[in-house]
Amino acid sequence: MHIAIPLYPRFTALDVAGPYTVMAFAPDTTVTLVAAERGPVTDDQGTLTMIATASYADLPDPDVIIVPGGLGTFDALGDEALVAWIREADRHTRWTTSVCSGALLLGAAGLLEGAKATTHWALLDNLKQYGAEPVSERSVAHGKIVTAAGVSAGIDMALTLLAQAAGEVTAQAVQLAIEYAPEPPFGCGSPETAPEGMVERAINLLV
Amino acid sequence: MHIAIPLYPRFTALDVAGPYTVMAFAPDTTVTLVAAERGPVTDDQGTLTMIATASYADLPDPDVIIVPGGLGTFDALGDEALVAWIREADRHTRWTTSVCSGALLLGAAGLLEGAKATTHWALLDNLKQYGAEPVSERSVAHGKIVTAAGVSAGIDMALTLLAQAAGEVTAQAVQLAIEYAPEPPFGCGSPETAPEGMVERAINLLV
Repeated sequence: MHIAIPLYPRFTALDVAGPYTVMAFAPDTTVTLVAAERGPVTDDQGTLTMIATASYADLPDPDVIIVPGGLGTFDALGDEALVAWIREADRHTRWTTSVCSGALLLGAAGLLEGAKATTHWALLDNLKQYGAEPVSERSVAHGKIVTAAGVSAGIDMALTLLAQAAGEVTAQAVQLAIEYAPEPPFGCGSPETAPEGMVERAINLLV
Repeated sequence: MHIAIPLYPRFTALDVAGPYTVMAFAPDTTVTLVAAERGPVTDDQGTLTMIATASYADLPDPDVIIVPGGLGTFDALGDEALVAWIREADRHTRWTTSVCSGALLLGAAGLLEGAKATTHWALLDNLKQYGAEPVSERSVAHGKIVTAAGVSAGIDMALTLLAQAAGEVTAQAVQLAIEYAPEPPFGCGSPETAPEGMVERAINLLV
């Protein structure tokens, strides 16, 4: 199974590396980081650069695409090459997926019309402009369109997809290999459980 | 607060990007990826390359170091420049930390003598050769030496350290910003909860 993750300026590093690590540790899978041109792309904090080893033209037909989010997503919505690659890749994929604000890029590619979908909690309403029905869940599958909630949710989504692609035993082995038995120090990972005023503080970190 | 994450050949991407994203999203923090020389370093799956933007010589005295693990750790134990940088950096740090097999590198630097410490579940016994007392917990603080369990545990450790460095409110805001309300699809993230035979399957993914 060949998985492609497109990089664009100001992506969020964990949106990429979470699902990447899940998928790349599995047997019989290859993950390729792609971009308009091969070469370095820097994240939304300006301090982590990953290298795309293929251009969009090099990899038009992966089995799965995972579109990350990031503070650069809004700029990326106007990136015709990226949006066109997503739209074209979707014609060939088994799954077309996103993490966090990456869902908006699926929307810009016209892939969310009539679909239930999710994204970062702060952006759920933004899905409506693409004809999607926002759903507040960790990940949402609508046919082959699978969208995950914010940043860290890509890990959960990737394990779920891996279970479908390679079987539950393989996905469980990967979960154990990456020792994914999370113990978040606080119970505030979603707006529903966060203390008063925390949503505003979190949004301030995202603009 | 200046945090340095050393990259060495065949590191695990999530070991880096998990704590990186937590720390880099926090206000008043800077995270720098360092290596023997500035430039690209490729992960243990051979398909994700990050760029070190500083050499060890450029950054001898960060406030915090986070040493990642990876399938390349055992080779890295013989990397004198890396081990010497860890040892020297520790003279200046507020915290000297590791994720996964990165703990063995702290051990090689002589920093685990008499310390309680943890690492990936498959490697707990390996800590003893460095004079450490292995502890099976998500993360373990022994003075300023803080070690996390396998791969994904770096996220939990980083949030815990951030709470101490910048206050619980800031750490909670970051946890909400990255929507860290994990929903692992399986209950098998640690050997204690994994089905029979799963440990062997996971180990097969790690060699």
